[in-house]
Amino acid sequence: MTHDDAIALDATDPLARYRDLFALPDGVIYLDGNSLGALPGSVPGAMADAVTRQWGDRLIRSWNEGWIDAPQRLGDRIAPLIGAAADQVIVGDSTSANLYKLIVAALRANPGRHTIVSETGNFPTDLHIAEGAVASVPGARLNAVARADLAAALDDDTALLMLTHVHYKTSDRFDMARWTQAAHDTSALMLWDLSHSVGAVPVDLDGARADMAVGCTYKYLNGGPGAPAFTYVAKRHQETLANPVSGWMGHAAPFEFDDGYTPAPGMKRWLVGTPPILSLAALEASLAIWNDVDQAAVATKSARLFDILAAAGDALGLDCVSPRNPAARGSHISFRHPHAYEITQALIARGVIGDFRDPDILRLGLTPLYLSHEDVWRAGDILADIVATESWRDPAFAERLPVT
Amino acid sequence: MTHDDAIALDATDPLARYRDLFALPDGVIYLDGNSLGALPGSVPGAMADAVTRQWGDRLIRSWNEGWIDAPQRLGDRIAPLIGAAADQVIVGDSTSANLYKLIVAALRANPGRHTIVSETGNFPTDLHIAEGAVASVPGARLNAVARADLAAALDDDTALLMLTHVHYKTSDRFDMARWTQAAHDTSALMLWDLSHSVGAVPVDLDGARADMAVGCTYKYLNGGPGAPAFTYVAKRHQETLANPVSGWMGHAAPFEFDDGYTPAPGMKRWLVGTPPILSLAALEASLAIWNDVDQAAVATKSARLFDILAAAGDALGLDCVSPRNPAARGSHISFRHPHAYEITQALIARGVIGDFRDPDILRLGLTPLYLSHEDVWRAGDILADIVATESWRDPAFAERLPVT
Repeated sequence: MTHDDAIALDATDPLARYRDLFALPDGVIYLDGNSLGALPGSVPGAMADAVTRQWGDRLIRSWNEGWIDAPQRLGDRIAPLIGAAADQVIVGDSTSANLYKLIVAALRANPGRHTIVSETGNFPTDLHIAEGAVASVPGARLNAVARADLAAALDDDTALLMLTHVHYKTSDRFDMARWTQAAHDTSALMLWDLSHSVGAVPVDLDGARADMAVGCTYKYLNGGPGAPAFTYVAKRHQETLANPVSGWMGHAAPFEFDDGYTPAPGMKRWLVGTPPILSLAALEASLAIWNDVDQAAVATKSARLFDILAAAGDALGLDCVSPRNPAARGSHISFRHPHAYEITQALIARGVIGDFRDPDILRLGLTPLYLSHEDVWRAGDILADIVATESWRDPAFAERLPVT
Repeated sequence: MTHDDAIALDATDPLARYRDLFALPDGVIYLDGNSLGALPGSVPGAMADAVTRQWGDRLIRSWNEGWIDAPQRLGDRIAPLIGAAADQVIVGDSTSANLYKLIVAALRANPGRHTIVSETGNFPTDLHIAEGAVASVPGARLNAVARADLAAALDDDTALLMLTHVHYKTSDRFDMARWTQAAHDTSALMLWDLSHSVGAVPVDLDGARADMAVGCTYKYLNGGPGAPAFTYVAKRHQETLANPVSGWMGHAAPFEFDDGYTPAPGMKRWLVGTPPILSLAALEASLAIWNDVDQAAVATKSARLFDILAAAGDALGLDCVSPRNPAARGSHISFRHPHAYEITQALIARGVIGDFRDPDILRLGLTPLYLSHEDVWRAGDILADIVATESWRDPAFAERLPVT
């Protein structure tokens, strides 16, 4: 893959036009959209409207002019991106909080079973939250095992299998249909964390007969820093699963101000408190971009961008820990290196923003909507220079930042 | 109180200058700042910076340039408004979610006691969440009783007394020191909901030896719709109380990505997921207003504003359900009327925005930072006209909106 090859790919890229919908800084090749998506150009105006007109001018009246329905409206926007038919997705709270609600609900719905099975090395908050959730259900326990031992861990005490579809470090992707079936074969429920999947790879929750899912909106969906997460519950479970964090926004009639809690029908019961409207406003503008995105083109371009960096890594003898098969991975590429931290910092100093994942992973996100093939080729070229010259040995690059 | 009297009070009002810090719409007298505070004029610029520079230009780097510490930084800003010494307040999640965390933590910290005592007619989410929280602790139960029966309900099975300092309907205010002492007399912990107190009335959590508190930032603090809430835990309990919703942002070392959960020291353990940065940015700009506000002047002006509307109500023979003693109430005034809903709508049609609380309460918020005495006098005058002429009988005013 030469520079000219990359330019030629850009010339026929069906997604090239989306790049203009994002406000990217000059001099930066942004390979961290898997951590924080770039700013869509529509967001500043949408946010100014939310602040100045909706809040400032309309004040409390805005609750009846779009705010109160925002969690469902945004859920409906996300649904087609994860293979969900209508009325199964709602936006609110963080991925972590939503995991807690769903895990506790799943364990309570099946009191004859006590175990939640998950993977060691899963994104930490999934395991942390599972630890907390099992403490809220008498007799429940978390059994986290290595990926190779997952199948054997499923048994007749398994209430729930909880997996992250695309691994945050390696980019490994589970076969959603197969693992959902494995959970169902032992009569357990299946909960998917789609944080590194939505907007990155094709997802078909309904097709896989998944039971529950959560996901993040500030990565590939570009919803803004800390944008509220989403919750999916399959229609067939919506009236039986109950939110343990039973706040007023999940009440059947929140403005009747009853003392007793009656869960709302459908997805609304997964709401808790008053939603952060300004953060939702940014997310809503971001989601509009996805209306006409061709998901197959996203997958194709992601694979091509991966190939460019994989080839650069191969030429350098780097240890690529991400799968070579595009169907078995997400939309980032990771290299293991004992000095991954320093290399990440050296890349940032050269305008290539990726990130480091403890202890030894250089992670580079590939976002087909706003990266060109040439961008990624140039990133590979800069990486090659840094590794070949060992310029990462500059002591300045070893200084640890609080957030890595 | 005549129109001239009101104008005279405005002429010597030490808080008059704060009005210019808010962007209020023309033609509106806004008496709903107890539900959604008005827009501070500094927020649009702060939000544009958060969106365009921090997110758009600095991208992921902003986590190390102020974002990661925002929950603690904003907590430190709120602390002096609630009588809290440093390092006892953190901002994040909703009031409802924070109540869940604290109630479960308090019940678990005292397994020999099983009961949480609260008040019937408390703000509904407090009771709804308590219902959910007791279901997460074996043997726990909620005992909600009428205010007159609270003292008798405290006994040697009481783990926690949970009260809302200022009542959302009536404006009744509990004596914080006295009720905290009552809880302590029976060796229970005391949890205050300050949603209708902070920024409205003097609060001294440390002085009262309160144990825990939560509160809302989108009412008198003007943090914006659905702005994240705050959590207070007294220093002496910080290492023993544990967050049941154990997410990665509350981990001692979130970026070391350990499988096991180790709670952070201090207040950070009450965080759960990634905080909604854009909503926090609006709140941070709003809180700057409070740096030099004289809380005693706020209390004095609140009482004066109340007197203006109380006199108007008295002249109309309205049933004022709020206490006449300023020390026994918050900063809103409520009238009971069988047609409170229609009167609220008729007021809004005349540019006086208050709200209705089911089933029969007209509630008018008195926010000393941006209301003049004349504003409130004019609101009373319009109310008098609507009640005297019964113009609220227009059928258009009976049409129910989803959010009331």
